[in-house]
Amino acid sequence: MLDFSTDIQISFGDCDPAGIVYYPNFCRWVDRTFHALLREKLGGHARLCRDLDAQGLGLMNVEMAFKSPAVEGDLMQLRIVEITWAGKSYAIRYQAHIAERLVFEAVETRGVFVRRDGRMAAGDVSPLKDRLEQALSSNS
Amino acid sequence: MLDFSTDIQISFGDCDPAGIVYYPNFCRWVDRTFHALLREKLGGHARLCRDLDAQGLGLMNVEMAFKSPAVEGDLMQLRIVEITWAGKSYAIRYQAHIAERLVFEAVETRGVFVRRDGRMAAGDVSPLKDRLEQALSSNS
Amino acid sequence: MLDFSTDIQISFGDCDPAGIVYYPNFCRWVDRTFHALLREKLGGHARLCRDLDAQGLGLMNVEMAFKSPAVEGDLMQLRIVEITWAGKSYAIRYQAHIAERLVFEAVETRGVFVRRDGRMAAGDVSPLKDRLEQALSSNS
Amino acid sequence: MLDFSTDIQISFGDCDPAGIVYYPNFCRWVDRTFHALLREKLGGHARLCRDLDAQGLGLMNVEMAFKSPAVEGDLMQLRIVEITWAGKSYAIRYQAHIAERLVFEAVETRGVFVRRDGRMAAGDVSPLKDRLEQALSSNS
Repeated sequence: MLDFSTDIQISFGDCDPAGIVYYPNFCRWVDRTFHALLREKLGGHARLCRDLDAQGLGLMNVEMAFKSPAVEGDLMQLRIVEITWAGKSYAIRYQAHIAERLVFEAVETRGVFVRRDGRMAAGDVSPLKDRLEQALSSNS
Repeated sequence: MLDFSTDIQISFGDCDPAGIVYYPNFCRWVDRTFHALLREKLGGHARLCRDLDAQGLGLMNVEMAFKSPAVEGDLMQLRIVEITWAGKSYAIRYQAHIAERLVFEAVETRGVFVRRDGRMAAGDVSPLKDRLEQALSSNS
Repeated sequence: MLDFSTDIQISFGDCDPAGIVYYPNFCRWVDRTFHALLREKLGGHARLCRDLDAQGLGLMNVEMAFKSPAVEGDLMQLRIVEITWAGKSYAIRYQAHIAERLVFEAVETRGVFVRRDGRMAAGDVSPLKDRLEQALSSNS
Repeated sequence: MLDFSTDIQISFGDCDPAGIVYYPNFCRWVDRTFHALLREKLGGHARLCRDLDAQGLGLMNVEMAFKSPAVEGDLMQLRIVEITWAGKSYAIRYQAHIAERLVFEAVETRGVFVRRDGRMAAGDVSPLKDRLEQALSSNS
């Protein structure tokens, strides 16, 4: 059972003229949390790509549902609550809370991109899945 | 039939260590294109909010599907291809192309937020719909 | 003697195609550190503006000298090392280190902006100076 | 005599809770304008680095003086008004105006970074100077 999180302190400059977080910043923090997972559990994106002979763990799709606003001074916890594995992609589900209040939910669908016949293609995700599951079980 | 677009010149600093656009920048450009529509057709977000007695035209949900990479030097056309109206929300569909190649598709679901009994609520979107349709027909 | 700092974990998306931090992100973190000082010592920017009858503590000038690169995975400490007070402005000096290595130095010159005769003007900074010195001495 | 400019349409999301442009965005647009100069006059940063056998044209220092605010809906012209060449660096001077009003001035000091004995060092800038002067004279 996955539970990995980062804390985000909302700052003045993260907010727009309506005084609430400008939503591309939510995307930045989602991406940052995924990379924090890679760094803390799997040695980081660069090393993982070398180990997997991959070009990157790039994004195919993202969905975000905004539930309540975040404003300057809020401390937001952004959690990865689940990763669901398919053959050539995996979906990472995020939830962001300020105390008990849900701020947004997001799902990123990512691949393990490899170079094949001179072009990029989505490769088998099971080596990544195995490494992550092993790392999470040995950490717990 | 709606066809509104902005041109985005992809710059070095828009890209990540993989050399492709860092995806929160796509979100920024989507939001920028929506606001350009408001500015060019309806006098801008601030004036429109006054006219509609609304607090904002904030985002409820966003979905983006990334189809091919954009790199430094690319000139990307980001188009609003359709707006679909519901009672208390509207969905704006975007497509981004570099020449003929599709880079990403996005759908933003937004509301017309009003203050009611001291809190924010999604209001009726038909006054916005009417203004936009009138503006688009008188412009064409 | 002032020593206030924030820790910045450098993430993949903070970096450009050269693999080093894209410098506008350094600006964001400098601004974020100033606002963290306000929040932790003086109740935050919004409350402080009410207390001082000010419109904002906006920036007049910034200088940054880049000394060495920061890359993905680095943990950077960004410190406010000194605030120098003039009549209508104050200069905040920052240093950013990764372990012992200096990454950049910055100086922001800011004001206490007030509305006077219908327009914005830089006001006397001594009420801000007094509050900050009192907060710092009572905290130490 | 150099006069190169980009136009920046200020959008809602470029602004902070005070309703004015969040200053790291000014940095992004300064960097974007430098890269636009490289692209339009010298084939772009990547090709130029290959031609000059350089690793990058990175930043050593930046100074910005903020003169008046920019708000949503403003159209800002950002001009490179002068480049001053030293042995191992060059200073690019920018001015941003909204109509006749000065918004900010900036000076970036950049180098031509080369790899020497396994580490990065600032190299001779005269090959870059020659190319740029030739490009500008043949364009005029």
